Amino acid sequence: MDKEKLSIIKIGGNIIEDATSLDAFLELFSNLEGKKILVHGGGKRATSIASKLGIESKMVNGRRITDKETLEVITMVYGGLVNKNVVAKLQALNIDAIGLTGADINSIQSEKRPVKEIDFGFVGDVKKVNHTNIDKLIQADFTPVFCAITHDGNGQLLNTNADTITSQVAVGMSNLYETSIYYCFELNGVLQDFNDKESVIKNINTDKYKQLLEDNIIVDGMIPKIDNCFDALQNGVEKVHIGNTSMFTKENNNFTTITL
Amino acid sequence: MDKEKLSIIKIGGNIIEDATSLDAFLELFSNLEGKKILVHGGGKRATSIASKLGIESKMVNGRRITDKETLEVITMVYGGLVNKNVVAKLQALNIDAIGLTGADINSIQSEKRPVKEIDFGFVGDVKKVNHTNIDKLIQADFTPVFCAITHDGNGQLLNTNADTITSQVAVGMSNLYETSIYYCFELNGVLQDFNDKESVIKNINTDKYKQLLEDNIIVDGMIPKIDNCFDALQNGVEKVHIGNTSMFTKENNNFTTITL
Repeated sequence: MDKEKLSIIKIGGNIIEDATSLDAFLELFSNLEGKKILVHGGGKRATSIASKLGIESKMVNGRRITDKETLEVITMVYGGLVNKNVVAKLQALNIDAIGLTGADINSIQSEKRPVKEIDFGFVGDVKKVNHTNIDKLIQADFTPVFCAITHDGNGQLLNTNADTITSQVAVGMSNLYETSIYYCFELNGVLQDFNDKESVIKNINTDKYKQLLEDNIIVDGMIPKIDNCFDALQNGVEKVHIGNTSMFTKENNNFTTITL
Repeated sequence: MDKEKLSIIKIGGNIIEDATSLDAFLELFSNLEGKKILVHGGGKRATSIASKLGIESKMVNGRRITDKETLEVITMVYGGLVNKNVVAKLQALNIDAIGLTGADINSIQSEKRPVKEIDFGFVGDVKKVNHTNIDKLIQADFTPVFCAITHDGNGQLLNTNADTITSQVAVGMSNLYETSIYYCFELNGVLQDFNDKESVIKNINTDKYKQLLEDNIIVDGMIPKIDNCFDALQNGVEKVHIGNTSMFTKENNNFTTITL
């Protein structure tokens, strides 16, 4: 029997932070047919509120450390301010949204990242997605909206990368659905020439990816992102799309689709 | 056919603010048999965070005004920090909790309080409880945890009194369940003599209440609270209990029960 389709869409801080972009995106999202899940990052709002509260952002080797106070700000901003406003806006668009952290209905359990060279603090690496519980919400016609927070099952919330939440939720849900991921970002897709915003590589598969790496077309921060996509594909996700926020509308076919 | 029982428990800021009290309460709550809903207030944390962020608490005639900035802090603190930590702690106690504002699954719609003598700002008066959607969560064996925020259906979150949310949710759910409210506060119950903390009036009904009002035993701020209880009872709620956090344990029978 064919599985039903489920789309998992991730938006980043750049969309969250700009009210006009966010409203435009949410309208497109509300018109997307079929079952769907939204995952959002946090953006710079957490940093600015932390700064106002006198909490310094601690960085080690360019990576943010989530101490107790920073986790509180993240829980306030991602789990409260951003998540609940997105939910209220979606309700106004007739989407029966429900805002979630990984603690809610035990949807995403993670493990506090072990301390090696760096102690990242209250950062979680996803261990288990409760696809059964998440599906109860979907079957009830609710649209889950995840923020980038998980829990360890022992009462501790943990800051967790939104891209990872997206791919892990998609992998978990692929037990029940034919899942597609849509990573929305500021570009039209993966670019052949970084200086030409229209030079979108429309299709990438395993062989093509090897070639793009050899040719130094995909470099730097894009490598772990695409690796993460292939990891999701190898674990049950059908397709991963990368592009701007209009990529899942019928009119747009200028974005990148990744398959095995 | 007899309806199934549903308990709606409300805790206030005094419990939320003290980690030891909160943990003790959540353990009692986790052991309470049957279907249940938790409603929590916010406490002084919102005021202290607002103050740190340079947002002044504006009061008119002794009542707080919720301007845009204050609503943001309330959304962060009640909807994020408090709600999600309570959910994570309940998960650790094997309660499959789900944190909600009234915007989530459109559970509680309210109306921005009309401006008369005072403009209260972004404060909502409850209009409609979506008992069908809330019941979908309960039927899925999830335990709803509400914070004191609702929405207007047009994308606007609204600050809403937690006692009112409790009674309105209980009234709404009484379409489907035999509902009891438990208002947890710092006293053992409604007191015959305010100076004797043990002088709990165990049972109050309509006639008894009239007598207590005539005798000036129930005065001041307690009057609207009890009026609110009778309003809930007249609209379908079976029983309202008022007492300390241990009142719904089997060992404690020293609290106030209100019936029609």
